[in-house]
Amino acid sequence: MNHPPLNELGAAALARGLQQRDFRATDVVYACLERIAELEPQLQAWTHVAKDTALNRARQLDAGAVQGMLHGLPLGIKDVFDTWDMPTAYGSPIYAGHQPCADAATVALCREAGAIALGKTVTTEFATFQAGPTRNPHNHAHTPGGSSSGSCAAVAAGMVPMAFGSQTAASIIRPAAYCGVVGYKPSFGAIARTGVKGLSDSLDTIGAIGREVEDVALLAACLSGNQQLMDLSIDHAPRVGLCRTAQWDGVAAETKALLAMVPGMLERAGATVTDIDLPAGFDDLAQAHIDIMAYETARALSDERLRHEEQLGVTLRGVIARGLEMPHAHYAAQLDRAARARGQLADLFRDADVLLAPSAAGEAPLFEEGTGDPLYCRPWTLLGLPCIHLPFARGPRGLPLGLQAIGAPHADHATLAAAAWLLPRLR
Amino acid sequence: MNHPPLNELGAAALARGLQQRDFRATDVVYACLERIAELEPQLQAWTHVAKDTALNRARQLDAGAVQGMLHGLPLGIKDVFDTWDMPTAYGSPIYAGHQPCADAATVALCREAGAIALGKTVTTEFATFQAGPTRNPHNHAHTPGGSSSGSCAAVAAGMVPMAFGSQTAASIIRPAAYCGVVGYKPSFGAIARTGVKGLSDSLDTIGAIGREVEDVALLAACLSGNQQLMDLSIDHAPRVGLCRTAQWDGVAAETKALLAMVPGMLERAGATVTDIDLPAGFDDLAQAHIDIMAYETARALSDERLRHEEQLGVTLRGVIARGLEMPHAHYAAQLDRAARARGQLADLFRDADVLLAPSAAGEAPLFEEGTGDPLYCRPWTLLGLPCIHLPFARGPRGLPLGLQAIGAPHADHATLAAAAWLLPRLR
Repeated sequence: MNHPPLNELGAAALARGLQQRDFRATDVVYACLERIAELEPQLQAWTHVAKDTALNRARQLDAGAVQGMLHGLPLGIKDVFDTWDMPTAYGSPIYAGHQPCADAATVALCREAGAIALGKTVTTEFATFQAGPTRNPHNHAHTPGGSSSGSCAAVAAGMVPMAFGSQTAASIIRPAAYCGVVGYKPSFGAIARTGVKGLSDSLDTIGAIGREVEDVALLAACLSGNQQLMDLSIDHAPRVGLCRTAQWDGVAAETKALLAMVPGMLERAGATVTDIDLPAGFDDLAQAHIDIMAYETARALSDERLRHEEQLGVTLRGVIARGLEMPHAHYAAQLDRAARARGQLADLFRDADVLLAPSAAGEAPLFEEGTGDPLYCRPWTLLGLPCIHLPFARGPRGLPLGLQAIGAPHADHATLAAAAWLLPRLR
Repeated sequence: MNHPPLNELGAAALARGLQQRDFRATDVVYACLERIAELEPQLQAWTHVAKDTALNRARQLDAGAVQGMLHGLPLGIKDVFDTWDMPTAYGSPIYAGHQPCADAATVALCREAGAIALGKTVTTEFATFQAGPTRNPHNHAHTPGGSSSGSCAAVAAGMVPMAFGSQTAASIIRPAAYCGVVGYKPSFGAIARTGVKGLSDSLDTIGAIGREVEDVALLAACLSGNQQLMDLSIDHAPRVGLCRTAQWDGVAAETKALLAMVPGMLERAGATVTDIDLPAGFDDLAQAHIDIMAYETARALSDERLRHEEQLGVTLRGVIARGLEMPHAHYAAQLDRAARARGQLADLFRDADVLLAPSAAGEAPLFEEGTGDPLYCRPWTLLGLPCIHLPFARGPRGLPLGLQAIGAPHADHATLAAAAWLLPRLR
């Protein structure tokens, strides 16, 4: 073999090899299962591993024609996505052992394209606050981040080449940052949410976790139907706007140092880099996001609050109480604030193809400290912009560091292409 | 009794009487159940009637304190809304006998506010095309419209004072028009969709069916948390824009005659009425809606297509096939078209508080002809505007006629208040 072990290849590289029959889906699944057997007792990234079903499906795929663009690729499915053949507990004891009768639309689309559902990955409680058991694969004393904890840890640990994430605040970008993988939150609305437990209709976004930008582009192309996403060629070095965000004071020294290095690295590679000052109204967007999410989550989880309140986590109960007490006029004013900020985005992206900004304050916190602060993603999620975490450095504790690339409204293709240009040059 | 039979009162009037203990929830439920027993064999508006549970709940409510703003009000629940204690089949044989383990968020919120879940009402297949068995209560040879067929028929027939609807194209407004009840499709995003079967993330909207504008305002206030919706007082007669729409050629003579009468009626009552010409780009919005819905529905129903295709209706299969074949660039262009039209709405509503436009071409078609054409609602749904069907006339076949009032973006309160002013003056 002149390639890394199969379980360490990226999804797009694997897809090419599988479609050319350079290697068998069965061997890819075996490699992933061996890695899971080795590391899962410590890492605890999975709520369910469908060993036999996955191997049977791999054998079918190896014996038949190429099924689709994800032929033979093992897939980790965050446990807020329904699966007809695997239990789905949404990270909550309320749903322990719950067996949906249908796949989420996204799960079905991946299976149709030839992906092999390897299992369900750990999510925080309803993709919110209460952490699951998953540890950071780089140092088990630290959190993998949340809420897509298991998906990011499993991809980082070589257990699976790609996985589903979902983001309402920072649930793709932050765990991707803490685990050192590529995380892609598409533009709001790009991927169908049917069959994914809903928290906030204005914010919930489905996305992808992988090792390289081309991996998440591949998965998103399948899910969105936008095949253009897979063409990551670019005819000019991107214009990059460095964005220190309205929350710069809370950014850790290692992240500040990283951002200081970026202009030199990128300019030597041919990119133009400018400092971006956000418009004044943007300072309030993080708080607007907090309020909108509380208002909507408080209502979305009504059944759970009314019939199982004692089984809800304390933090989530607090957010729900706050959301129920919030006057509708305040919520509506925050939606207006977001709409006004969206109206300023054309200006913001006039001279920049992508912004680079912190994905999180710094390295992953200790496990006991929770899954980290979503603050650095809240404004971008509220604006509905495409965001891609680029992992390319290590912090003082040896844990992964990186930055997120943020694109213009609905410019997912240009954002992925710019990210694919940037990542190797930052590494 | 100096009021109509309890099963014929509107929800808001009932709510007042129930909260003042003028009558008992038990008697309201009995009145509804008697009406159901009498008419359901012919009308077939329900997939499930929770007779014993509803009566038990009514007795509890009568014996205890006032529970909330919907205290003691029987509620019909469209069978695309999950209910933990009643089967939920989404109008599809695929889900025959399916028992969800949780309530939709909206169902839970109503129960908390004291509503009594009387049962599940017939929906077309996944709220799309294939009709259920429900007949038009005014003439059983005709369709009640779809997809909220059972909800509108049940309210019109005096079986229940209020019911849930949902609209992706015309699924609240059109059956409300055919059945002669008030149907309210709120602004896009106003009410949480968790636990309602998703068809199209960009379009799906939850709404309310009742007898009077105050009835749907009451239900929407509970669901959205916007208590202001219940104050329907208005300090000036509304400025009304008459909108003949881009589809005027297909409008039936009875609806054209109705629209011709409106200016005189409303001007005599003190309103100003002007003719509204839609901007040029609006002509294409109905087709843009068709394409966006096809693209998104094709993906949202992936599990059903892949595992149960033979159980999908022929028309739905055709729409799904079209959505899967549609290039992503075409879909994205339609979303852009809608976004540009939304940018013109401030101008459109500069001189009008509400528009009045056809809810449907004319009276309800014959049962065998299907549930009617959603064309007259597609543009407004795509724009996300609040829409309220006002029933106030009869057509040449004796079937209900009316018009829809359409409000400015997020102006749900002003739209409801204008509608409450208009309806008695049009009647």
